Amino acid sequence: MINDARIQVFEAHQADRGISLEEVKRRLKQLKIETPSWGYGDSGTRFQVFKKAGVPRTTFEKMEDAAQVHRFTGLSPSVAIHIPWDKVDDYSRLREHTESLGIKIGAVNPNLFQDDDYMLGSITHTDQAIRRKATAHLRECVAIAREVGSDIVSLWLADGTNYPGQADIRKRKRWMEEALRETYRELDQGMRLLIEYKFFEPAFYHTDLADWGMAFNLATKLGPQAEVLVDTGHHPQGTNVEHLVAYLLDEERLGGFHFNGRKYADDDLIVGTTNPYEIFLIFYQIVAALREEENAGARRTAERIAYMIDQSHNIEPKIPAMIRSVLNVQTLYAKALLINWKELEEAQVDLDVLRAEAAVREAFEQDVEPLLHMVREERGLPPEPMKAFLESGYVEKIQDRGVGGASW
Amino acid sequence: MINDARIQVFEAHQADRGISLEEVKRRLKQLKIETPSWGYGDSGTRFQVFKKAGVPRTTFEKMEDAAQVHRFTGLSPSVAIHIPWDKVDDYSRLREHTESLGIKIGAVNPNLFQDDDYMLGSITHTDQAIRRKATAHLRECVAIAREVGSDIVSLWLADGTNYPGQADIRKRKRWMEEALRETYRELDQGMRLLIEYKFFEPAFYHTDLADWGMAFNLATKLGPQAEVLVDTGHHPQGTNVEHLVAYLLDEERLGGFHFNGRKYADDDLIVGTTNPYEIFLIFYQIVAALREEENAGARRTAERIAYMIDQSHNIEPKIPAMIRSVLNVQTLYAKALLINWKELEEAQVDLDVLRAEAAVREAFEQDVEPLLHMVREERGLPPEPMKAFLESGYVEKIQDRGVGGASW
Amino acid sequence: MINDARIQVFEAHQADRGISLEEVKRRLKQLKIETPSWGYGDSGTRFQVFKKAGVPRTTFEKMEDAAQVHRFTGLSPSVAIHIPWDKVDDYSRLREHTESLGIKIGAVNPNLFQDDDYMLGSITHTDQAIRRKATAHLRECVAIAREVGSDIVSLWLADGTNYPGQADIRKRKRWMEEALRETYRELDQGMRLLIEYKFFEPAFYHTDLADWGMAFNLATKLGPQAEVLVDTGHHPQGTNVEHLVAYLLDEERLGGFHFNGRKYADDDLIVGTTNPYEIFLIFYQIVAALREEENAGARRTAERIAYMIDQSHNIEPKIPAMIRSVLNVQTLYAKALLINWKELEEAQVDLDVLRAEAAVREAFEQDVEPLLHMVREERGLPPEPMKAFLESGYVEKIQDRGVGGASW
Amino acid sequence: MINDARIQVFEAHQADRGISLEEVKRRLKQLKIETPSWGYGDSGTRFQVFKKAGVPRTTFEKMEDAAQVHRFTGLSPSVAIHIPWDKVDDYSRLREHTESLGIKIGAVNPNLFQDDDYMLGSITHTDQAIRRKATAHLRECVAIAREVGSDIVSLWLADGTNYPGQADIRKRKRWMEEALRETYRELDQGMRLLIEYKFFEPAFYHTDLADWGMAFNLATKLGPQAEVLVDTGHHPQGTNVEHLVAYLLDEERLGGFHFNGRKYADDDLIVGTTNPYEIFLIFYQIVAALREEENAGARRTAERIAYMIDQSHNIEPKIPAMIRSVLNVQTLYAKALLINWKELEEAQVDLDVLRAEAAVREAFEQDVEPLLHMVREERGLPPEPMKAFLESGYVEKIQDRGVGGASW
Repeated sequence: MINDARIQVFEAHQADRGISLEEVKRRLKQLKIETPSWGYGDSGTRFQVFKKAGVPRTTFEKMEDAAQVHRFTGLSPSVAIHIPWDKVDDYSRLREHTESLGIKIGAVNPNLFQDDDYMLGSITHTDQAIRRKATAHLRECVAIAREVGSDIVSLWLADGTNYPGQADIRKRKRWMEEALRETYRELDQGMRLLIEYKFFEPAFYHTDLADWGMAFNLATKLGPQAEVLVDTGHHPQGTNVEHLVAYLLDEERLGGFHFNGRKYADDDLIVGTTNPYEIFLIFYQIVAALREEENAGARRTAERIAYMIDQSHNIEPKIPAMIRSVLNVQTLYAKALLINWKELEEAQVDLDVLRAEAAVREAFEQDVEPLLHMVREERGLPPEPMKAFLESGYVEKIQDRGVGGASW
Repeated sequence: MINDARIQVFEAHQADRGISLEEVKRRLKQLKIETPSWGYGDSGTRFQVFKKAGVPRTTFEKMEDAAQVHRFTGLSPSVAIHIPWDKVDDYSRLREHTESLGIKIGAVNPNLFQDDDYMLGSITHTDQAIRRKATAHLRECVAIAREVGSDIVSLWLADGTNYPGQADIRKRKRWMEEALRETYRELDQGMRLLIEYKFFEPAFYHTDLADWGMAFNLATKLGPQAEVLVDTGHHPQGTNVEHLVAYLLDEERLGGFHFNGRKYADDDLIVGTTNPYEIFLIFYQIVAALREEENAGARRTAERIAYMIDQSHNIEPKIPAMIRSVLNVQTLYAKALLINWKELEEAQVDLDVLRAEAAVREAFEQDVEPLLHMVREERGLPPEPMKAFLESGYVEKIQDRGVGGASW
Repeated sequence: MINDARIQVFEAHQADRGISLEEVKRRLKQLKIETPSWGYGDSGTRFQVFKKAGVPRTTFEKMEDAAQVHRFTGLSPSVAIHIPWDKVDDYSRLREHTESLGIKIGAVNPNLFQDDDYMLGSITHTDQAIRRKATAHLRECVAIAREVGSDIVSLWLADGTNYPGQADIRKRKRWMEEALRETYRELDQGMRLLIEYKFFEPAFYHTDLADWGMAFNLATKLGPQAEVLVDTGHHPQGTNVEHLVAYLLDEERLGGFHFNGRKYADDDLIVGTTNPYEIFLIFYQIVAALREEENAGARRTAERIAYMIDQSHNIEPKIPAMIRSVLNVQTLYAKALLINWKELEEAQVDLDVLRAEAAVREAFEQDVEPLLHMVREERGLPPEPMKAFLESGYVEKIQDRGVGGASW
Repeated sequence: MINDARIQVFEAHQADRGISLEEVKRRLKQLKIETPSWGYGDSGTRFQVFKKAGVPRTTFEKMEDAAQVHRFTGLSPSVAIHIPWDKVDDYSRLREHTESLGIKIGAVNPNLFQDDDYMLGSITHTDQAIRRKATAHLRECVAIAREVGSDIVSLWLADGTNYPGQADIRKRKRWMEEALRETYRELDQGMRLLIEYKFFEPAFYHTDLADWGMAFNLATKLGPQAEVLVDTGHHPQGTNVEHLVAYLLDEERLGGFHFNGRKYADDDLIVGTTNPYEIFLIFYQIVAALREEENAGARRTAERIAYMIDQSHNIEPKIPAMIRSVLNVQTLYAKALLINWKELEEAQVDLDVLRAEAAVREAFEQDVEPLLHMVREERGLPPEPMKAFLESGYVEKIQDRGVGGASW
């Protein structure tokens, strides 16, 4: 629990550090982190999917669970859907149901990896008929987005090969481009196509969209409504992800994030649990860009970044895992907002490496619990969202769904 | 096709190089590579298992398919089984069936990762009842090994945690040791417990048996019937696997291999397709040890290494993929047998780095097709095993099994 | 600056969390982090060593600089030396000088990588004469340790090969063991031989002492005075270093640490600047072991871990970089001491993954500045060591040393 | 030695495989691999540079050594230079000397990492004066290229930071672009600016030009005379380099290669000694593009790729190491030329994964020694270049240069 003394001391300390808390709180209140419908269902590794009780059986139930996350955190007013996992007969009914829960439908995610036809590729398949089918699915997803009131289609392409020689890499590249051009043309004004990339898995020799460079080049070719989607777990070991973020911001092509945590591959763990400093450093780059945009009256790229969670909760209870995730993101964003920019920029100009590094790290070392309490109180939210959710009785209520809900 | 001229030229060339082909052929004829029953069923990634027609529906049918691999290659007289995937009511009937096919049952593999109870660990679980259950399964596998006439139990432990703090790492270590001691005591004389390790997946924060050092230390503590099992795909990027092989050989604790190929994580691709030189270099270390053992009359560690395939054929036809796998191992072993040891050792003593490196690489660059043809002819095997299998009509015959066979 | 209100709030908050600050402060006051003499000289990458003004010209001056780190932080009462970089004619004079500065000489580090003779190996060299020379150097370092009053010889072995075939890996392994046995026999009672390992560089194909498993096995063979030294930058990407720490603690073979930070290889950056959570998690394992040792009256392994910095300050001012380094270690250790063990252990027993993870992370998120101020005040140290050092005038004083001091 | 029978059998075997040797030999005779002047001098790791006897003392002597490589292999008619390592008073004299040796000067490499001013960056430095100085050096290198008759300036940028916060990543990006635009404008028609990238080292937190995507984007912005230079050792672990090669070929931006070998980081070992299959697979992509270009009459990107060696021979004799390197490249290119494209393309169209993989691997498994002998004989070169060089007496002749030649 946070008492008044802690809050006062926090405020005084930040004032000493030269931080305007009003500004910090303003930005914090704008933070929105979309959660994914598939994060509420059962998931697992290739070795096993452990079934849990209370898992939603339908997309409608997934939305109800997602609404809980928003209810207690105020952070997650939208939910990404995955087609066909969330395919329904009547999308307007789904939209109504969702909006009646106080949230809305966010990014629409096509699925190009679970149909038997896609074993050797979807939009990059050697067989034109399969490429056509996959492209039609992409176009269908744009239509669904229109129907559910979403302005984002986010594409993760699982295509690739397992062996040298298996296919013609350059032909596949051209087919991919062709399919995405066709999809892009379907977009309404104001819609965005976010292009994700992945370095490995489920294709083990080469993935057709392997890294940010390929996603960026595609986006550039397609046009201004195409942007890059950074999944924090999709990089080779040792990658400086915040550098890529800064780079894409500077090129005005950073569309959004899929947040998660990982130690080795695409482990899809809860964001901020393996290397919280990395997420903080990503936000440091974003805050730098936000400040510049505001000062320069430049194109608002940083401001409209779509923050999304993309995780598999294999062993965790689903809703608490999602609450933990968005709280971790909020915490690390809050820390980045406490950087003393004057101090930092002076040290950079003075070429004082140690002071510059300290200016960034010092913000990370702040305990932001009092700050988050303030923000929650001002917004009429429970000061301790996890505790409030666990005490709400919701978990008990959904047990009658039984075991064997949705999974992928 | 290999004609006489190619063979004569090959023989002459190797004679020029100072290689005794009789010796090489003797060793090649001793090579045995066990295939796994699970390599004949459907498998996939966490994203999708693509179902194929003709996949065996029972362990009995898996044995029939495995027998084909041996029939055409002469390389795979035994088949590893996985309990409970290959659980049958009557193991003596399974044994009889298998032996009637001209092959036998090899390593027995316990499964400690698919029971709901094991979500947070099996022999390392915090709950003693679950640890007991898991240990009982290990003991059961020793009993099954006895029943099917196998002398190897090979343990891959999927246990681990996903988050810092999730469990007490040192307690789990002690529980693991306790369970394995109990299992070890069940072994008959002549039986071996092979201990595998894995650096990542399906536990994403820490795996209880993470590397060769932990497996080796365990084996040392358990006793002389415990040895280390090296899976070529279970290491961090950049690992010099052949160094570990040499190290374990020198410590007389190298029990066997799980061969496969990988580019990033545990991709379980066909061995020898991503980096064939690595497999060759592993065999270079083994051949060095074999030579030393024979000369020194030392304990025969290298001689009794258990070579096994452990792969997932997600997109490949199952039996051809297995034939390709064992042929690749045979090819790379054959190349290692063509190292000119006199040349190599002289260069090493002379500290001539380039000549020493060349002596090893030169063997790799030999085309061993003529050699393998000779060996096959002398053993009465088809000279081109893949071609012979594809023309045999077996694939067509098993189509009536339909789609939806065994998978994991 | 820390005012009374911040301290009071901190104390109250920790009391709320159930933390005994007296206990925490007791442990913090015992923390000792050795700094290396070579960290005060010029260093660089293979591409360039940038020369700085004020760098010490002799080992005597290095000790003077090291004494400053201790003077302002109270954390670094000893200094590791490297032979021959710190070779002097009269070690008792060096010892006297050092002790007159209020510090003492710590670990003695042999150098087996800079003599022309060692290009292809030192204690693993094919040529026996070179092995003898290298072994003699190791024995000399034990003698120097005796002379300077140190009880630690810490061995980092750069030996290895660049190419397959270059040398006989198993022979080198045996020679290495032979040399270390001879060295071990020289140790006085109470002396320890700490064995470091490294996965890569400067040998690029294989390093003779590549990982913790090889160091551990060697230590076990040598005897109880041999232990493993963990350098945080010497692992493959993706390694769970804290797992290795827990493992070695449980085996009672964790001798010490070389702390530093890295993003890709052995970058030798300031500890705690790339992934501070990793250092915290290492201390979490150590604190767990410390608690167990005290409760169980077991062998005091964790208590006598030798903490050492091993970094190259290529672009940073030397003394401030070292102050930053030891302060970072102190900060992260302090955080680990704030783990609520009751909460953590209950969550682990309840199999509550999220609560257990949160119990650990929550400690990390505490701002420990007030705690460290308290500790410093109680010990009569400046509350802000870096500021105090920078204002002390020492930097200005040493400028007359000019450019071109010691380097390696 | 290769006798007639081996050659006849090789020819017959390739004819059986449907390979036109005339075509293969034609391409092989066009292969040119530039060697770097710095590969003839002493080099080492950050730990030690081992000095060797006979190392060239001047750039003139480096050219003499480089000429030997070409004399015996016929593969290396040009030599890359590095400014200021190869700075001379009179470049036309250097050019004359070089051409009198039967070779010429190739790519000019600026050095932006060894001047004290560049410690915190060169063209990305916060201080404009240093950026101007660095840009002037780049322009000087274009002028030198003009003077020595070279049409390539190849840029490797070591700039980057060691710590989060150390500098403003986006500002540095813009300064880099500015400097390169200015350099680009200096290029004569027909000149190319090749832009290299590196994922790590010597900057350890971020490198300003970190990956192919950044180099590609820069090249695109600069114009058609800017292309990407791929150094095989500059990627994260697990990277599919041949995929990047195919991608850049398809974008018509692949300018050249820096070949070398590595196991972990940028080890700068002899190309083809750690993973020869990777180099072969790179050439497989290049040959595919060459074939397409010829058929389509497209822009000749693949045809004019600049192949260059970039290695550090720390422990190897310099000239033999370079001969080994270019022979390895030739060998692996020859193998790629033996791919049966008809077979491969049919298998790809049939979606026959195993047959397609085999078509590629089969070419790799050919022993190309007879082929290379044929090519050498037809060109009047010694059939065994290494042997011929070692017997030529050149090594003995240069011993009088003594120890202490050029190094970096």
